Amino acid sequence: MKQPACELCDAEGGRLVLSDEWLRVVLVDDPEFPGFARVIWNEHVREMSDLGPGEQQRLMLTVFAVERAQRAVLAPAKVNLASLGNVTPHLHWHVIPRFADDAHFPGSIWSARQCAPDPAQLAVRRSRLGTLRVAIAARLPAAD
Amino acid sequence: MKQPACELCDAEGGRLVLSDEWLRVVLVDDPEFPGFARVIWNEHVREMSDLGPGEQQRLMLTVFAVERAQRAVLAPAKVNLASLGNVTPHLHWHVIPRFADDAHFPGSIWSARQCAPDPAQLAVRRSRLGTLRVAIAARLPAAD
Repeated sequence: MKQPACELCDAEGGRLVLSDEWLRVVLVDDPEFPGFARVIWNEHVREMSDLGPGEQQRLMLTVFAVERAQRAVLAPAKVNLASLGNVTPHLHWHVIPRFADDAHFPGSIWSARQCAPDPAQLAVRRSRLGTLRVAIAARLPAAD
Repeated sequence: MKQPACELCDAEGGRLVLSDEWLRVVLVDDPEFPGFARVIWNEHVREMSDLGPGEQQRLMLTVFAVERAQRAVLAPAKVNLASLGNVTPHLHWHVIPRFADDAHFPGSIWSARQCAPDPAQLAVRRSRLGTLRVAIAARLPAAD
């Protein structure tokens, strides 16, 4: 059931990598965070504890597959995982590769800005996004 | 194996609710976020994808149990889940009950402050922390 005026019911929420009956993986078009992905539950559900155990596991295995793909392709200093949803309470996971030279490190991406990232480094990371898309698809858990 | 100078190898990381062989649940002593909990993997592991599937599931089921306890006892507007670890790369989950009147809502707790929360409301929430501790313990997944 779609929820009126929910931006994740109305739109993909990023550049689609792939989707199935339950969820979709998108890349976020953030110029300062190349490789930032979201895993979005298709149905309008609020909290992880509103899903059944099998649904929870399917969603988390997808989040971890995206993390593994990011690590393999981008070699981040750390991967940040977050399900917040205070503004858009439609279950979605942020999967964010973090680098020591990124604009907010070591704070969260929602924290105060720390520096202006090097455009050349960002360009290198952006050049790997095609590879990342393939790597995510290759690591996804098999559908039942 | 303990990691030198890791604050989650050296200390509990909060007021202990319970612990087992694999992980522990603590309440964070943050005066503005009563009920803020962390689920901390005991071993010094960096990323979720460094755990095996059974370990990942054990950790996430504990996170979701804490979320269910927070919802039952505190009725938050939203629960925020996050594994960041940029400063302390020792696997730990923040499980944060959020309220429309809290200091950072609807931003993340790491975002700019929005308001000064009402001390009376905070006191009501703090008065439920004993109940929350019991509720967390009651909802934890059974150990194998």
